[in-house]
Amino acid sequence: MPRIVDHAARRTEIVYALWAVIHEKGLDSVSFRAVAEAAGVSIGRIQHYFTSKEELIREGCAQIVGAAEDQYAEVPDGAGPCLTLWHLVTSPIPSTPPRRIGVAVWYAYLAKSVSEPALREIITGAVDTACTEATALLHAARAERGGGADGSEVGADGAGSRTEREALALLALGDGLAQRVMVGALDSDDALAVLAQEFERRGLGGCGERSV
Amino acid sequence: MPRIVDHAARRTEIVYALWAVIHEKGLDSVSFRAVAEAAGVSIGRIQHYFTSKEELIREGCAQIVGAAEDQYAEVPDGAGPCLTLWHLVTSPIPSTPPRRIGVAVWYAYLAKSVSEPALREIITGAVDTACTEATALLHAARAERGGGADGSEVGADGAGSRTEREALALLALGDGLAQRVMVGALDSDDALAVLAQEFERRGLGGCGERSV
Repeated sequence: MPRIVDHAARRTEIVYALWAVIHEKGLDSVSFRAVAEAAGVSIGRIQHYFTSKEELIREGCAQIVGAAEDQYAEVPDGAGPCLTLWHLVTSPIPSTPPRRIGVAVWYAYLAKSVSEPALREIITGAVDTACTEATALLHAARAERGGGADGSEVGADGAGSRTEREALALLALGDGLAQRVMVGALDSDDALAVLAQEFERRGLGGCGERSV
Repeated sequence: MPRIVDHAARRTEIVYALWAVIHEKGLDSVSFRAVAEAAGVSIGRIQHYFTSKEELIREGCAQIVGAAEDQYAEVPDGAGPCLTLWHLVTSPIPSTPPRRIGVAVWYAYLAKSVSEPALREIITGAVDTACTEATALLHAARAERGGGADGSEVGADGAGSRTEREALALLALGDGLAQRVMVGALDSDDALAVLAQEFERRGLGGCGERSV
């Protein structure tokens, strides 16, 4: 009887080893040999799943984006738009040392994307999706609360609108705070306190406290 | 007659070559040989100025921090606290392709700082200085305008205060937007429009338009 092989699990195992190599030696030091050693498998096994080093690196980028989306999808059942927005905005902030390593790998991909269009496409796709999502959530959260407490218009504005710019500001704020937590210039609790104050200032106070 | 050698210029020339190597091949591929080739000088010349590869890499990090501080110092004469704050917050946003490369090198340093305490120290020092500066400017800008238009308290709060958290939010926002511009998910003009809206929302409208 043939063994049942979980191919998705094997690919993921290889991608985890790739991330470890990126973290320890940098993206430019990635090779099938280095990843095989880190994974404790043969080079042939890796070649079975990935036709080139570039394909493996792209898959690592797509999976890091996917992992962030999965984490965001862990919003509790019955959460309203405001709490969901809080989860989306806070998701990049690393709360544990393993997550800091994940963020470091992400920064290695960001740095590389300047010279690698294929990586840039994966990253900008994720960024655009998050922005669309955050804009819809911000509209819904404001509508739920009966309008913005700060007097800004609600609902009718489209692309390039005030609401879209504000959603973008919240997402960019989460990323900028994550950067500070990663380098150790800020505690993750302080980063969440800054975000809670920003939500409150936008008439969305109390959204995040349940999850802080 | 001995030649007059500008040692500071020679060190800077070597650091520029280091940045080119980091951008093209990654931080983990830095060697005296690679930097000498990029600079078009001998390895001996580099060893004359830097005792180790690590020292050169640290100097590159310190100079990138210094370059950001110099750029911020180019605030026009007679600029008030509000315009100065605008310059500080917008300074990481790359407006030209060469600046995008500079930001990419910066991200390589950020990624590496997770495993390199010496780099982390340089970066957190710069981050803390900017935060202290932004907090003072925000206080001064609010005082100049006779209080916050959003009803938040002004002046008397200290460390860990609302004003400090707000200053931190503005700086983090600038960094998060810079990240989007770097990967090509946002134009630098759109990034500045998001920031202008955020300044306006905080009762600091019109600060930035002179410099946009």
